[in-house]
Amino acid sequence: MEANTEGHTPPRALTIAGTDSGGGAGMHADCRTFFCCGVHATTAVTAVTVQNSLGVTGFVEIPPEVVAAQIEAVVTDVGISAAKTGMLASAPIISAVAATCAKVGIGQSGLIPFVVDPVSASMHGDQLLRDDALDILRGELFPRASLVTPNLDEVRLLTGIEVASRARMADAAKAMYEFGPRWVLIKGGHLVTDQECVDLLYDGSTMIELPGPRIDTRHTHGSGDTLASAITSALAKGRSVPQAVAFGKRFVLRAVREAYPLGGGVGPVSNFWRLPDIEI
Amino acid sequence: MEANTEGHTPPRALTIAGTDSGGGAGMHADCRTFFCCGVHATTAVTAVTVQNSLGVTGFVEIPPEVVAAQIEAVVTDVGISAAKTGMLASAPIISAVAATCAKVGIGQSGLIPFVVDPVSASMHGDQLLRDDALDILRGELFPRASLVTPNLDEVRLLTGIEVASRARMADAAKAMYEFGPRWVLIKGGHLVTDQECVDLLYDGSTMIELPGPRIDTRHTHGSGDTLASAITSALAKGRSVPQAVAFGKRFVLRAVREAYPLGGGVGPVSNFWRLPDIEI
Repeated sequence: MEANTEGHTPPRALTIAGTDSGGGAGMHADCRTFFCCGVHATTAVTAVTVQNSLGVTGFVEIPPEVVAAQIEAVVTDVGISAAKTGMLASAPIISAVAATCAKVGIGQSGLIPFVVDPVSASMHGDQLLRDDALDILRGELFPRASLVTPNLDEVRLLTGIEVASRARMADAAKAMYEFGPRWVLIKGGHLVTDQECVDLLYDGSTMIELPGPRIDTRHTHGSGDTLASAITSALAKGRSVPQAVAFGKRFVLRAVREAYPLGGGVGPVSNFWRLPDIEI
Repeated sequence: MEANTEGHTPPRALTIAGTDSGGGAGMHADCRTFFCCGVHATTAVTAVTVQNSLGVTGFVEIPPEVVAAQIEAVVTDVGISAAKTGMLASAPIISAVAATCAKVGIGQSGLIPFVVDPVSASMHGDQLLRDDALDILRGELFPRASLVTPNLDEVRLLTGIEVASRARMADAAKAMYEFGPRWVLIKGGHLVTDQECVDLLYDGSTMIELPGPRIDTRHTHGSGDTLASAITSALAKGRSVPQAVAFGKRFVLRAVREAYPLGGGVGPVSNFWRLPDIEI
Protein backbone atom coordinates (compact mmCIF):
# COMPACT_ATOMS: atom_id res chain seq x y z
CA MET A 1 0.00 0.00 0.00
CA GLU A 2 1.20 3.46 -0.89
CA ALA A 3 0.82 6.54 1.37
CA ASN A 4 -0.82 9.55 -0.23
CA THR A 5 0.89 12.91 -0.13
CA GLU A 6 -1.93 14.27 2.08
CA GLY A 7 -2.31 17.46 0.08
CA HIS A 8 -2.81 20.73 1.87
CA THR A 9 -6.40 21.93 2.17
CA PRO A 10 -6.79 24.83 -0.28
CA PRO A 11 -8.74 28.03 0.52
CA ARG A 12 -12.51 27.47 0.17
CA ALA A 13 -15.17 29.73 -1.29
CA LEU A 14 -18.95 29.40 -1.56
CA THR A 15 -21.19 30.28 -4.49
CA ILE A 16 -24.91 30.74 -3.88
CA ALA A 17 -26.31 30.47 -7.40
CA GLY A 18 -28.32 28.62 -10.02
CA THR A 19 -27.14 25.87 -12.35
CA ASP A 20 -26.93 26.27 -16.16
CA SER A 21 -27.51 23.00 -18.03
CA GLY A 22 -25.48 24.33 -20.97
CA GLY A 23 -22.52 24.65 -18.62
CA GLY A 24 -21.42 28.11 -19.73
CA ALA A 25 -22.56 30.29 -16.86
CA GLY A 26 -24.05 30.29 -13.35
CA MET A 27 -22.75 27.91 -10.73
CA HIS A 28 -20.69 26.06 -13.35
CA ALA A 29 -18.72 29.15 -14.33
CA ASP A 30 -18.29 29.97 -10.63
CA CYS A 31 -16.97 26.52 -9.69
CA ARG A 32 -14.69 26.40 -12.73
CA THR A 33 -13.26 29.81 -11.91
CA PHE A 34 -12.75 29.04 -8.20
CA PHE A 35 -10.92 25.85 -9.25
CA CYS A 36 -8.78 27.71 -11.80
CA CYS A 37 -7.79 30.17 -9.07
CA GLY A 38 -6.69 27.35 -6.75
CA VAL A 39 -9.78 27.57 -4.53
CA HIS A 40 -12.01 24.64 -3.48
CA ALA A 41 -15.57 25.39 -4.63
CA THR A 42 -18.57 24.80 -2.39
CA THR A 43 -22.15 25.55 -3.44
CA ALA A 44 -25.67 26.42 -2.33
CA VAL A 45 -27.93 25.80 -5.32
CA THR A 46 -30.85 28.27 -5.54
CA ALA A 47 -32.40 27.13 -8.83
CA VAL A 48 -31.91 24.58 -11.60
CA THR A 49 -32.31 26.10 -15.07
CA VAL A 50 -33.11 24.44 -18.39
CA GLN A 51 -30.76 26.41 -20.60
CA ASN A 52 -28.59 26.28 -23.70
CA SER A 53 -26.82 28.80 -25.93
CA LEU A 54 -30.18 30.08 -27.18
CA GLY A 55 -31.62 30.98 -23.77
CA VAL A 56 -33.46 29.76 -20.67
CA THR A 57 -36.62 27.71 -21.32
CA GLY A 58 -37.49 26.73 -17.76
CA PHE A 59 -36.31 26.44 -14.20
CA VAL A 60 -37.21 25.10 -10.78
CA GLU A 61 -36.51 26.97 -7.56
CA ILE A 62 -34.97 25.18 -4.60
CA PRO A 63 -36.93 25.67 -1.33
CA PRO A 64 -35.44 28.57 0.71
CA GLU A 65 -34.81 26.32 3.73
CA VAL A 66 -32.74 23.94 1.56
CA VAL A 67 -30.70 26.88 0.24
CA ALA A 68 -30.09 27.94 3.86
CA ALA A 69 -29.21 24.36 4.87
CA GLN A 70 -26.58 24.11 2.13
CA ILE A 71 -24.91 27.33 3.32
CA GLU A 72 -24.89 26.13 6.93
CA ALA A 73 -23.61 22.65 6.04
CA VAL A 74 -20.67 24.17 4.21
CA VAL A 75 -19.76 26.96 6.63
CA THR A 76 -19.98 24.84 9.79
CA ASP A 77 -17.85 21.94 8.51
CA VAL A 78 -15.78 22.78 5.42
CA GLY A 79 -15.32 26.46 6.39
CA ILE A 80 -14.99 29.22 3.80
CA SER A 81 -12.99 32.42 3.50
CA ALA A 82 -15.18 34.18 0.90
CA ALA A 83 -18.66 33.86 -0.64
CA LYS A 84 -20.57 35.16 -3.64
CA THR A 85 -24.11 35.16 -4.97
CA GLY A 86 -25.39 34.69 -8.52
CA MET A 87 -29.00 34.06 -9.57
CA LEU A 88 -31.17 34.08 -6.42
CA ALA A 89 -34.50 33.54 -8.21
CA SER A 90 -37.08 34.87 -5.72
CA ALA A 91 -37.77 37.13 -2.74
CA PRO A 92 -38.06 34.23 -0.23
CA ILE A 93 -34.70 32.81 -1.37
CA ILE A 94 -33.00 36.21 -1.12
CA SER A 95 -34.42 36.68 2.40
CA ALA A 96 -33.24 33.23 3.44
CA VAL A 97 -29.76 33.90 2.02
CA ALA A 98 -29.50 37.28 3.80
CA ALA A 99 -30.63 35.82 7.13
CA THR A 100 -28.34 32.79 6.89
CA CYS A 101 -25.34 34.89 5.90
CA ALA A 102 -25.95 37.12 8.92
CA LYS A 103 -26.18 34.02 11.14
CA VAL A 104 -22.93 32.39 9.93
CA GLY A 105 -20.83 35.55 9.56
CA ILE A 106 -20.83 36.05 5.79
CA GLY A 107 -20.55 39.70 4.76
CA GLN A 108 -20.38 43.03 6.60
CA SER A 109 -20.25 42.75 10.40
CA GLY A 110 -19.12 39.14 9.82
CA LEU A 111 -15.60 37.96 8.99
CA ILE A 112 -16.20 36.43 5.55
CA PRO A 113 -15.96 38.76 2.51
CA PHE A 114 -19.15 38.65 0.45
CA VAL A 115 -19.49 39.51 -3.25
CA VAL A 116 -23.08 40.12 -4.38
CA ASP A 117 -23.46 39.86 -8.15
CA PRO A 118 -27.03 41.21 -8.40
CA VAL A 119 -28.13 39.00 -11.30
CA SER A 120 -31.48 40.52 -12.23
CA ALA A 121 -31.42 41.16 -15.98
CA SER A 122 -31.08 38.65 -18.82
CA MET A 123 -28.47 38.93 -21.57
CA HIS A 124 -31.08 40.94 -23.47
CA GLY A 125 -31.72 43.36 -20.59
CA ASP A 126 -35.06 41.79 -19.59
CA GLN A 127 -35.99 41.79 -15.92
CA LEU A 128 -35.27 38.35 -14.35
CA LEU A 129 -36.33 39.10 -10.77
CA ARG A 130 -39.80 40.31 -9.74
CA ASP A 131 -40.14 43.73 -8.11
CA ASP A 132 -40.60 42.23 -4.63
CA ALA A 133 -37.31 40.35 -5.09
CA LEU A 134 -35.52 43.55 -6.17
CA ASP A 135 -36.78 45.21 -2.97
CA ILE A 136 -35.33 42.45 -0.79
CA LEU A 137 -32.07 42.50 -2.75
CA ARG A 138 -31.69 46.25 -2.07
CA GLY A 139 -33.03 46.22 1.48
CA GLU A 140 -31.62 42.98 2.96
CA LEU A 141 -28.73 41.70 0.84
CA PHE A 142 -26.83 44.80 -0.37
CA PRO A 143 -26.27 46.06 3.23
CA ARG A 144 -24.38 42.80 3.89
CA ALA A 145 -22.23 42.95 0.74
CA SER A 146 -18.51 43.63 0.82
CA LEU A 147 -18.87 44.37 -2.91
CA VAL A 148 -21.76 44.55 -5.39
CA THR A 149 -21.03 44.11 -9.10
CA PRO A 150 -23.98 45.31 -11.25
CA ASN A 151 -23.84 45.67 -15.01
CA LEU A 152 -25.61 48.64 -16.58
CA ASP A 153 -28.91 46.80 -17.13
CA GLU A 154 -28.92 45.85 -13.45
CA VAL A 155 -28.07 49.45 -12.51
CA ARG A 156 -31.14 50.59 -14.46
CA LEU A 157 -33.43 48.04 -12.76
CA LEU A 158 -32.02 48.68 -9.29
CA THR A 159 -31.54 52.47 -9.28
CA GLY A 160 -33.57 53.75 -12.23
CA ILE A 161 -30.43 55.40 -13.63
CA GLU A 162 -29.94 54.93 -17.39
CA VAL A 163 -26.19 55.04 -18.05
CA ALA A 164 -25.71 56.12 -21.66
CA SER A 165 -22.19 57.50 -21.32
CA ARG A 166 -19.11 56.93 -19.19
CA ALA A 167 -19.77 60.23 -17.39
CA ARG A 168 -22.99 58.87 -15.89
CA MET A 169 -21.31 55.83 -14.28
CA ALA A 170 -20.28 57.79 -11.18
CA ASP A 171 -23.94 58.67 -10.49
CA ALA A 172 -24.77 54.98 -10.74
CA ALA A 173 -21.97 54.08 -8.33
CA LYS A 174 -23.20 56.64 -5.79
CA ALA A 175 -26.81 55.44 -6.08
CA MET A 176 -25.76 51.79 -5.61
CA TYR A 177 -23.58 52.78 -2.63
CA GLU A 178 -26.63 54.27 -0.92
CA PHE A 179 -28.02 50.73 -0.49
CA GLY A 180 -25.24 49.97 1.98
CA PRO A 181 -22.56 47.78 0.38
CA ARG A 182 -18.93 48.41 1.44
CA TRP A 183 -17.77 48.71 -2.21
CA VAL A 184 -19.50 49.08 -5.59
CA LEU A 185 -18.13 47.93 -8.94
CA ILE A 186 -20.09 49.34 -11.89
CA LYS A 187 -19.28 47.26 -14.98
CA GLY A 188 -19.11 49.21 -18.23
CA GLY A 189 -19.28 46.19 -20.54
CA HIS A 190 -22.83 46.93 -21.70
CA LEU A 191 -21.90 50.48 -22.76
CA VAL A 192 -21.35 49.34 -26.33
CA THR A 193 -20.90 52.87 -27.68
CA ASP A 194 -17.62 53.00 -25.74
CA GLN A 195 -14.56 51.69 -27.64
CA GLU A 196 -13.02 50.68 -24.32
CA CYS A 197 -14.51 48.71 -21.43
CA VAL A 198 -14.15 50.89 -18.34
CA ASP A 199 -15.37 49.80 -14.89
CA LEU A 200 -15.74 52.05 -11.88
CA LEU A 201 -14.91 51.02 -8.29
CA TYR A 202 -16.28 53.13 -5.43
CA ASP A 203 -16.09 52.90 -1.64
CA GLY A 204 -18.10 55.99 -0.69
CA SER A 205 -15.15 58.35 -1.02
CA THR A 206 -12.85 57.48 -3.91
CA MET A 207 -13.85 56.66 -7.50
CA ILE A 208 -11.29 54.33 -9.09
CA GLU A 209 -11.50 54.10 -12.88
CA LEU A 210 -10.45 50.69 -14.19
CA PRO A 211 -9.76 50.81 -17.92
CA GLY A 212 -9.65 47.74 -20.13
CA PRO A 213 -9.95 46.80 -23.80
CA ARG A 214 -13.30 45.92 -25.36
CA ILE A 215 -13.19 42.52 -27.08
CA ASP A 216 -15.13 42.02 -30.29
CA THR A 217 -17.01 38.77 -29.63
CA ARG A 218 -20.61 37.76 -29.12
CA HIS A 219 -19.50 34.81 -26.95
CA THR A 220 -19.70 36.40 -23.51
CA HIS A 221 -21.92 33.90 -21.67
CA GLY A 222 -20.69 33.57 -18.08
CA SER A 223 -18.43 36.64 -18.17
CA GLY A 224 -20.14 38.32 -15.19
CA ASP A 225 -20.01 35.10 -13.15
CA THR A 226 -16.37 34.55 -14.05
CA LEU A 227 -15.41 38.10 -13.02
CA ALA A 228 -17.26 37.91 -9.68
CA SER A 229 -15.84 34.44 -8.98
CA ALA A 230 -12.27 35.45 -9.75
CA ILE A 231 -12.73 38.43 -7.39
CA THR A 232 -14.17 36.09 -4.74
CA SER A 233 -11.23 33.71 -5.17
CA ALA A 234 -8.74 36.52 -4.60
CA LEU A 235 -10.68 37.62 -1.50
CA ALA A 236 -10.59 34.00 -0.28
CA LYS A 237 -6.80 34.24 -0.58
CA GLY A 238 -6.73 37.35 1.61
CA ARG A 239 -6.46 40.12 -0.99
CA SER A 240 -8.10 43.53 -0.50
CA VAL A 241 -11.14 44.48 -2.59
CA PRO A 242 -9.15 46.73 -5.00
CA GLN A 243 -6.47 44.02 -5.44
CA ALA A 244 -9.13 41.35 -5.96
CA VAL A 245 -11.02 43.45 -8.52
CA ALA A 246 -7.80 44.13 -10.45
CA PHE A 247 -7.08 40.38 -10.52
CA GLY A 248 -10.67 39.59 -11.52
CA LYS A 249 -10.48 41.97 -14.46
CA ARG A 250 -7.22 40.40 -15.70
CA PHE A 251 -8.72 36.92 -15.33
CA VAL A 252 -12.00 37.63 -17.15
CA LEU A 253 -10.23 39.56 -19.91
CA ARG A 254 -8.26 36.44 -20.78
CA ALA A 255 -11.46 34.35 -20.53
CA VAL A 256 -13.32 36.66 -22.95
CA ARG A 257 -10.33 36.72 -25.33
CA GLU A 258 -10.54 32.92 -25.52
CA ALA A 259 -14.33 32.56 -25.57
CA TYR A 260 -15.58 29.87 -27.94
CA PRO A 261 -18.69 29.23 -30.04
CA LEU A 262 -21.14 26.69 -28.59
CA GLY A 263 -24.48 25.66 -30.06
CA GLY A 264 -26.48 28.04 -32.20
CA GLY A 265 -26.38 31.08 -29.95
CA VAL A 266 -24.06 32.77 -27.46
CA GLY A 267 -20.96 30.77 -26.52
CA PRO A 268 -19.17 30.89 -23.16
CA VAL A 269 -16.01 32.63 -22.03
CA SER A 270 -13.23 30.10 -21.53
CA ASN A 271 -10.98 29.07 -18.66
CA PHE A 272 -9.20 26.36 -20.68
CA TRP A 273 -6.10 28.61 -20.99
CA ARG A 274 -5.38 27.72 -17.33
CA LEU A 275 -4.64 24.08 -18.33
CA PRO A 276 -1.61 22.52 -19.98
CA ASP A 277 -2.52 19.83 -22.53
CA ILE A 278 -3.21 16.32 -21.29
CA GLU A 279 -2.56 13.13 -23.23
CA ILE A 280 -5.73 11.05 -23.43
CA MET B 1 -11.81 47.29 -30.21
CA GLU B 2 -9.84 44.05 -30.13
CA ALA B 3 -10.88 40.86 -32.00
CA ASN B 4 -11.05 37.72 -29.89
CA THR B 5 -9.18 34.62 -30.97
CA GLU B 6 -12.55 32.82 -31.50
CA GLY B 7 -11.41 29.69 -29.73
CA HIS B 8 -12.30 26.29 -31.13
CA THR B 9 -15.34 24.60 -29.63
CA PRO B 10 -14.04 21.75 -27.42
CA PRO B 11 -15.67 18.31 -27.23
CA ARG B 12 -18.76 18.37 -25.00
CA ALA B 13 -19.96 15.81 -22.46
CA LEU B 14 -23.08 15.62 -20.30
CA THR B 15 -23.36 14.56 -16.67
CA ILE B 16 -26.77 13.57 -15.30
CA ALA B 17 -26.23 13.79 -11.57
CA GLY B 18 -26.84 15.42 -8.21
CA THR B 19 -25.02 18.39 -6.70
CA ASP B 20 -22.86 18.17 -3.55
CA SER B 21 -22.84 21.41 -1.54
CA GLY B 22 -19.45 20.47 -0.09
CA GLY B 23 -18.08 20.46 -3.62
CA GLY B 24 -16.11 17.24 -3.38
CA ALA B 25 -18.24 14.81 -5.34
CA GLY B 26 -21.27 14.47 -7.61
CA MET B 27 -21.84 16.92 -10.44
CA HIS B 28 -19.03 19.12 -9.15
CA ALA B 29 -16.42 16.38 -9.43
CA ASP B 30 -17.82 15.49 -12.86
CA CYS B 31 -17.66 19.05 -14.23
CA ARG B 32 -14.20 19.61 -12.74
CA THR B 33 -12.93 16.39 -14.31
CA PHE B 34 -14.48 17.09 -17.73
CA PHE B 35 -12.83 20.53 -17.65
CA CYS B 36 -9.46 19.08 -16.61
CA CYS B 37 -9.68 16.67 -19.55
CA GLY B 38 -10.31 19.53 -22.01
CA VAL B 39 -14.02 18.81 -22.34
CA HIS B 40 -16.86 21.36 -22.01
CA ALA B 41 -19.20 20.17 -19.23
CA THR B 42 -22.97 20.26 -19.60
CA THR B 43 -25.38 19.06 -16.90
CA ALA B 44 -28.80 17.68 -16.09
CA VAL B 45 -29.29 18.08 -12.34
CA THR B 46 -31.32 15.25 -10.75
CA ALA B 47 -31.11 16.30 -7.09
CA VAL B 48 -29.63 18.98 -4.87
CA THR B 49 -28.00 17.56 -1.75
CA VAL B 50 -27.21 19.22 1.56
CA GLN B 51 -23.84 17.67 2.21
CA ASN B 52 -20.43 18.22 3.79
CA SER B 53 -17.45 16.06 4.68
CA LEU B 54 -19.48 14.36 7.42
CA GLY B 55 -22.32 13.15 5.19
CA VAL B 56 -25.62 13.98 3.53
CA THR B 57 -28.26 15.61 5.77
CA GLY B 58 -30.95 16.34 3.20
CA PHE B 59 -31.79 16.62 -0.46
CA VAL B 60 -34.49 17.71 -2.90
CA GLU B 61 -35.28 15.83 -6.09
CA ILE B 62 -35.72 17.72 -9.36
CA PRO B 63 -38.99 16.84 -11.19
CA PRO B 64 -38.36 14.10 -13.81
CA GLU B 65 -39.68 16.30 -16.64
CA VAL B 66 -37.15 19.01 -15.74
CA VAL B 67 -34.33 16.43 -15.75
CA ALA B 68 -35.51 15.34 -19.22
CA ALA B 69 -35.78 18.96 -20.40
CA GLN B 70 -32.19 19.68 -19.38
CA ILE B 71 -30.93 16.67 -21.37
CA GLU B 72 -32.90 17.72 -24.45
CA ALA B 73 -31.86 21.38 -24.20
CA VAL B 74 -28.21 20.33 -24.18
CA VAL B 75 -28.27 17.62 -26.83
CA THR B 76 -30.37 19.56 -29.35
CA ASP B 77 -28.30 22.75 -29.23
CA VAL B 78 -24.86 22.32 -27.68
CA GLY B 79 -24.45 18.74 -28.88
CA ILE B 80 -22.48 16.15 -26.91
CA SER B 81 -20.18 13.27 -27.79
CA ALA B 82 -20.49 11.32 -24.51
CA ALA B 83 -22.70 11.22 -21.41
CA LYS B 84 -22.60 9.80 -17.90
CA THR B 85 -24.93 9.35 -14.95
CA GLY B 86 -24.28 9.77 -11.23
CA MET B 87 -26.91 9.94 -8.47
CA LEU B 88 -30.34 9.49 -10.05
CA ALA B 89 -32.32 9.64 -6.79
CA SER B 90 -35.62 7.88 -7.68
CA ALA B 91 -37.42 5.43 -9.98
CA PRO B 92 -39.33 8.17 -11.87
CA ILE B 93 -36.10 10.09 -12.55
CA ILE B 94 -34.31 6.95 -13.77
CA SER B 95 -37.25 6.13 -16.07
CA ALA B 96 -37.24 9.69 -17.46
CA VAL B 97 -33.48 9.54 -18.03
CA ALA B 98 -33.70 6.18 -19.82
CA ALA B 99 -36.56 7.35 -22.05
CA THR B 100 -34.91 10.67 -22.89
CA CYS B 101 -31.56 9.03 -23.64
CA ALA B 102 -33.33 6.63 -26.02
CA LYS B 103 -35.06 9.58 -27.70
CA VAL B 104 -31.92 11.68 -28.25
CA GLY B 105 -29.50 8.87 -29.13
CA ILE B 106 -27.52 8.51 -25.90
CA GLY B 107 -26.27 4.97 -25.30
CA GLN B 108 -26.59 1.64 -27.09
CA SER B 109 -28.46 1.77 -30.41
CA GLY B 110 -27.68 5.53 -30.35
CA LEU B 111 -24.45 7.21 -31.37
CA ILE B 112 -23.41 8.79 -28.07
CA PRO B 113 -21.33 6.64 -25.67
CA PHE B 114 -23.00 6.39 -22.26
CA VAL B 115 -21.30 5.62 -18.95
CA VAL B 116 -23.68 4.56 -16.17
CA ASP B 117 -22.12 4.91 -12.73
CA PRO B 118 -24.83 3.09 -10.75
CA VAL B 119 -24.59 5.23 -7.62
CA SER B 120 -26.76 3.30 -5.16
CA ALA B 121 -24.72 2.82 -2.00
CA SER B 122 -23.32 5.46 0.36
CA MET B 123 -19.68 5.66 1.38
CA HIS B 124 -20.62 3.40 4.29
CA GLY B 125 -22.32 0.79 2.05
CA ASP B 126 -25.86 1.86 2.94
CA GLN B 127 -28.53 1.59 0.25
CA LEU B 128 -29.20 5.03 -1.31
CA LEU B 129 -31.84 3.99 -3.89
CA ARG B 130 -35.12 2.28 -3.05
CA ASP B 131 -35.78 -1.22 -4.39
CA ASP B 132 -38.14 0.07 -7.10
CA ALA B 133 -35.38 2.39 -8.31
CA LEU B 134 -32.86 -0.48 -8.42
CA ASP B 135 -35.33 -2.41 -10.59
CA ILE B 136 -35.60 0.44 -13.10
CA LEU B 137 -31.84 0.91 -13.07
CA ARG B 138 -31.33 -2.77 -13.99
CA GLY B 139 -34.27 -3.06 -16.37
CA GLU B 140 -34.27 0.28 -18.23
CA LEU B 141 -30.93 2.02 -17.83
CA PHE B 142 -28.27 -0.73 -17.88
CA PRO B 143 -29.44 -2.03 -21.31
CA ARG B 144 -28.63 1.41 -22.73
CA ALA B 145 -25.17 1.68 -21.11
CA SER B 146 -21.95 1.50 -23.10
CA LEU B 147 -20.27 0.89 -19.74
CA VAL B 148 -21.43 0.40 -16.14
CA THR B 149 -18.98 1.08 -13.31
CA PRO B 150 -20.22 -0.42 -10.00
CA ASN B 151 -18.14 -0.62 -6.85
CA LEU B 152 -18.44 -3.74 -4.71
CA ASP B 153 -21.22 -2.36 -2.49
CA GLU B 154 -23.23 -1.57 -5.61
CA VAL B 155 -22.48 -5.06 -6.98
CA ARG B 156 -23.95 -6.51 -3.78
CA LEU B 157 -27.11 -4.37 -3.97
CA LEU B 158 -27.59 -4.95 -7.70
CA THR B 159 -26.67 -8.64 -8.09
CA GLY B 160 -26.70 -10.07 -4.56
CA ILE B 161 -23.10 -11.21 -5.02
CA GLU B 162 -20.84 -10.54 -2.04
CA VAL B 163 -17.30 -10.12 -3.38
CA ALA B 164 -14.92 -10.98 -0.54
CA SER B 165 -11.90 -11.87 -2.69
CA ARG B 166 -10.44 -10.96 -6.07
CA ALA B 167 -11.47 -14.38 -7.41
CA ARG B 168 -15.15 -13.53 -7.00
CA MET B 169 -14.96 -10.37 -9.15
CA ALA B 170 -15.41 -12.29 -12.41
CA ASP B 171 -18.75 -13.68 -11.18
CA ALA B 172 -19.83 -10.13 -10.38
CA ALA B 173 -18.80 -8.95 -13.86
CA LYS B 174 -20.80 -11.76 -15.50
CA ALA B 175 -23.87 -11.04 -13.38
CA MET B 176 -23.73 -7.32 -14.18
CA TYR B 177 -23.26 -8.11 -17.88
CA GLU B 178 -26.53 -10.06 -17.85
CA PHE B 179 -28.41 -6.76 -17.39
CA GLY B 180 -27.41 -5.74 -20.90
CA PRO B 181 -24.60 -3.14 -20.82
CA ARG B 182 -21.98 -3.32 -23.59
CA TRP B 183 -19.10 -3.28 -21.08
CA VAL B 184 -18.79 -3.77 -17.29
CA LEU B 185 -16.08 -2.31 -15.06
CA ILE B 186 -16.04 -3.86 -11.58
CA LYS B 187 -14.07 -1.59 -9.26
CA GLY B 188 -12.02 -3.38 -6.61
CA GLY B 189 -11.39 -0.33 -4.44
CA HIS B 190 -13.69 -1.49 -1.65
CA LEU B 191 -11.88 -4.85 -1.36
CA VAL B 192 -9.78 -3.49 1.47
CA THR B 193 -8.21 -6.86 2.29
CA ASP B 194 -6.39 -6.63 -1.06
CA GLN B 195 -3.00 -4.85 -0.92
CA GLU B 196 -3.53 -3.76 -4.54
CA CYS B 197 -6.54 -2.13 -6.18
CA VAL B 198 -7.51 -4.34 -9.11
CA ASP B 199 -10.44 -3.56 -11.42
CA LEU B 200 -12.00 -5.96 -13.91
CA LEU B 201 -13.25 -4.96 -17.36
CA TYR B 202 -15.59 -7.33 -19.20
CA ASP B 203 -17.40 -7.24 -22.55
CA GLY B 204 -19.15 -10.62 -22.45
CA SER B 205 -16.16 -12.55 -23.76
CA THR B 206 -12.83 -11.23 -22.42
CA MET B 207 -11.97 -10.42 -18.79
CA ILE B 208 -9.31 -7.71 -18.64
CA GLU B 209 -7.58 -7.35 -15.28
CA LEU B 210 -6.50 -3.79 -14.56
CA PRO B 211 -4.01 -3.68 -11.70
CA GLY B 212 -3.19 -0.54 -9.73
CA PRO B 213 -1.71 0.48 -6.41
CA ARG B 214 -3.88 0.96 -3.33
CA ILE B 215 -3.39 4.41 -1.78
CA ASP B 216 -3.48 4.75 1.98
CA THR B 217 -5.86 7.67 2.50
CA ARG B 218 -9.31 8.17 3.95
CA HIS B 219 -9.87 11.15 1.63
CA THR B 220 -11.58 9.41 -1.30
CA HIS B 221 -14.74 11.51 -1.66
CA GLY B 222 -15.57 11.86 -5.36
CA SER B 223 -13.18 9.15 -6.55
CA GLY B 224 -15.92 7.14 -8.31
CA ASP B 225 -17.30 10.27 -10.00
CA THR B 226 -13.83 11.34 -11.06
CA LEU B 227 -13.05 7.94 -12.57
CA ALA B 228 -16.33 7.73 -14.50
CA SER B 229 -15.97 11.34 -15.69
CA ALA B 230 -12.42 10.86 -16.89
CA ILE B 231 -13.58 7.76 -18.80
CA THR B 232 -16.49 9.77 -20.26
CA SER B 233 -14.10 12.55 -21.29
CA ALA B 234 -11.88 10.09 -23.15
CA LEU B 235 -14.95 8.62 -24.88
CA ALA B 236 -16.00 12.17 -25.84
CA LYS B 237 -12.60 12.47 -27.51
CA GLY B 238 -13.20 9.32 -29.54
CA ARG B 239 -11.28 6.72 -27.54
CA SER B 240 -12.46 3.09 -27.26
CA VAL B 241 -13.85 1.83 -23.94
CA PRO B 242 -10.62 -0.04 -22.97
CA GLN B 243 -8.50 3.02 -23.86
CA ALA B 244 -10.86 5.32 -21.97
CA VAL B 245 -10.87 3.08 -18.88
CA ALA B 246 -7.06 2.91 -18.87
CA PHE B 247 -6.93 6.72 -19.05
CA GLY B 248 -9.57 7.05 -16.33
CA LYS B 249 -7.58 4.84 -13.99
CA ARG B 250 -4.41 6.89 -14.51
CA PHE B 251 -6.34 10.10 -13.94
CA VAL B 252 -8.10 9.02 -10.75
CA LEU B 253 -4.92 7.46 -9.33
CA ARG B 254 -3.24 10.85 -9.49
CA ALA B 255 -6.37 12.47 -8.00
CA VAL B 256 -6.40 10.01 -5.05
CA ARG B 257 -2.66 10.46 -4.53
CA GLU B 258 -3.25 14.20 -4.11
CA ALA B 259 -6.51 14.03 -2.12
CA TYR B 260 -6.72 16.63 0.64
CA PRO B 261 -8.38 16.90 4.06
CA LEU B 262 -11.56 19.00 4.17
CA GLY B 263 -13.79 19.64 7.17
CA GLY B 264 -14.06 17.09 9.94
CA GLY B 265 -14.71 14.01 7.82
CA VAL B 266 -13.76 12.55 4.46
CA GLY B 267 -11.89 14.92 2.12
CA PRO B 268 -12.06 14.91 -1.68
CA VAL B 269 -9.71 13.58 -4.32
CA SER B 270 -7.96 16.46 -6.07
CA ASN B 271 -7.65 17.68 -9.64
CA PHE B 272 -5.49 20.68 -8.71
CA TRP B 273 -2.40 18.90 -10.08
CA ARG B 274 -3.75 19.74 -13.56
CA LEU B 275 -3.11 23.48 -12.96
CA PRO B 276 0.08 25.52 -13.00
CA ASP B 277 0.23 28.14 -10.24
CA ILE B 278 -1.47 31.48 -10.82
CA GLU B 279 -0.35 34.79 -9.35
CA ILE B 280 -3.25 36.44 -7.50
